[in-house]
Amino acid sequence: MNIYDVSAKAGVSIATVSRVLNGNPNVSDKTRSRVMEVMNALGYTPNVFARGLGLNTMKTVGIMCSDSSDPYLAHAIYYLERELRANGYDSILCCTGSKLINKRQYFELLLSKRVDAMILAGSKFVEIDSAEDNNYIIEAAADLPVMLVNGFLDAPGIYSTVCDDRDAMYQVADRLIKSGRRRILYVYTSHSYSGENKKRGYRDALAANGIPVRDDLICQCGKNIAAAKELLISLADSGLDFDAVMTSDDSLAVGAVKFAHARALDMPKDLAVVGYNNSMMSYCTDPEISSVDTKIEALCITTVQSLMQVFGGGDVPRKTTIAADFVQKQTTDI
Amino acid sequence: MNIYDVSAKAGVSIATVSRVLNGNPNVSDKTRSRVMEVMNALGYTPNVFARGLGLNTMKTVGIMCSDSSDPYLAHAIYYLERELRANGYDSILCCTGSKLINKRQYFELLLSKRVDAMILAGSKFVEIDSAEDNNYIIEAAADLPVMLVNGFLDAPGIYSTVCDDRDAMYQVADRLIKSGRRRILYVYTSHSYSGENKKRGYRDALAANGIPVRDDLICQCGKNIAAAKELLISLADSGLDFDAVMTSDDSLAVGAVKFAHARALDMPKDLAVVGYNNSMMSYCTDPEISSVDTKIEALCITTVQSLMQVFGGGDVPRKTTIAADFVQKQTTDI
Repeated sequence: MNIYDVSAKAGVSIATVSRVLNGNPNVSDKTRSRVMEVMNALGYTPNVFARGLGLNTMKTVGIMCSDSSDPYLAHAIYYLERELRANGYDSILCCTGSKLINKRQYFELLLSKRVDAMILAGSKFVEIDSAEDNNYIIEAAADLPVMLVNGFLDAPGIYSTVCDDRDAMYQVADRLIKSGRRRILYVYTSHSYSGENKKRGYRDALAANGIPVRDDLICQCGKNIAAAKELLISLADSGLDFDAVMTSDDSLAVGAVKFAHARALDMPKDLAVVGYNNSMMSYCTDPEISSVDTKIEALCITTVQSLMQVFGGGDVPRKTTIAADFVQKQTTDI
Repeated sequence: MNIYDVSAKAGVSIATVSRVLNGNPNVSDKTRSRVMEVMNALGYTPNVFARGLGLNTMKTVGIMCSDSSDPYLAHAIYYLERELRANGYDSILCCTGSKLINKRQYFELLLSKRVDAMILAGSKFVEIDSAEDNNYIIEAAADLPVMLVNGFLDAPGIYSTVCDDRDAMYQVADRLIKSGRRRILYVYTSHSYSGENKKRGYRDALAANGIPVRDDLICQCGKNIAAAKELLISLADSGLDFDAVMTSDDSLAVGAVKFAHARALDMPKDLAVVGYNNSMMSYCTDPEISSVDTKIEALCITTVQSLMQVFGGGDVPRKTTIAADFVQKQTTDI
């Protein structure tokens, strides 16, 4: 007997059952009566996490990420856990994978544990093509704070801390152009809030410098070193000419360095390469890869600080933006 | 008011208070009375996780690791969380850092949450030089199962799943020797259960092949690419001659590849390089680094399977050993 059974039997969402349990006024009297009837009929009592037992909080925050073994997200989890613990909060971790149905299920599962807040780490949690697919997050935010790390959803109760990816990419492209590069290949992994901002920065910098944006210089690629290397080889073989490669992830930049080695290109003279996230990978290659430090530690610290302010009843902006840093190493001279 | 206050006031350990709460018979009547008196005097009631409220389990497991942003541990957490969730268990994550005092504090904190079991990920949790420093783990294991991932402590209630690091290193060294290498440098990061087994494998293989073990060919180094590169440069500059480098971690092997590049050495002809953990880093370099796959996914799956058997009252061996795999890439020809 759990909140799922009540939700199914009453024909309402988990979030609605949660609202009734919390005494949230945003439930119609009719719905509230229906849910209470079902609870009585089923003999349901809220679980031990429930605030209804007279305990105001479990001091526990749910953290969701698509894949904690991704280096960027692994760091996010490390910093979030550290900051939450420093503030006296436990974190229940949930790695959801990338499918919407699983994200929704795990989200509801964590809600049913009566966590005090949810943190969604990484930009993969906001569906940018089908806004209605985000409704489950927006609905839940009526009951508890939802914090997005490097994602953005404009709704009450949702607080986003984002890296200024658009500006970071703009600056890199602008500096490459001003140092003489004209045919900058842009290779990216995913269609997401963060991914679209990065691409926009690249496009805007070209436009601002009077360079036409060419579709054949913008390519998608799996987040995989070998795939990126092969992509660049096939592009070069097909006659495409490029003097710089900007990427949305360091793994793609490592593939670009391997392409340059395979073709005996000098870096940065013949080919400039720029990674993204300034991960350990960017330090493994020879030459080391210039990359964008997306300040994941600062993002996580700010996320937890904002959450504590929300808990304290403070006025927190729905969106906080943090600037990235370009870390020049050996694959650029800009 | 919490279990700490009771522990402090009664002058007994958290584990003892926990035993009293659990009705564990391994507490003297005198101690039990004392703890109960203090609880009454302080008005203490067990927190909502407590089994004492008539709930047998929170279906929650505490996971401790020293640093979730380390690639090996990041994967461990990912697999542990996935397997626990598949079995209906939540995980509360705790990144402790490397100091014993912090490990102990976090361990007690998680115990006070009344988790159903503890999983300690990584070999850094067992102190191999000062056995008494492990007593807090051995004591806790009287009350709840403690699972060690790639660490070993021989005590009731502690179940270890370990990679056969000694055999993995033995096989690598043996193959290097049989392919003609005679001056194999061994570079390692840490003094731990796993670290000592790796070193033993190296030593045993040399001894078995009649090659003297030379102390000047065994070096410790920080887990850092640049430090490893500099160490090898200074060793070579000091006149040390070596035709192969075995390492206890891929980051050191990346440093060795950078050393070889700096000295224009051909790999593997002039220098063979072997990494450990077969992480993403070993795929970033040119040439790619041959490395030992330590089967972290299998270790984690086995750990959770063993835990479920323990929960079910099954007979589980205190130590399960899983064989590693050598993944030959481009820095060896063995």
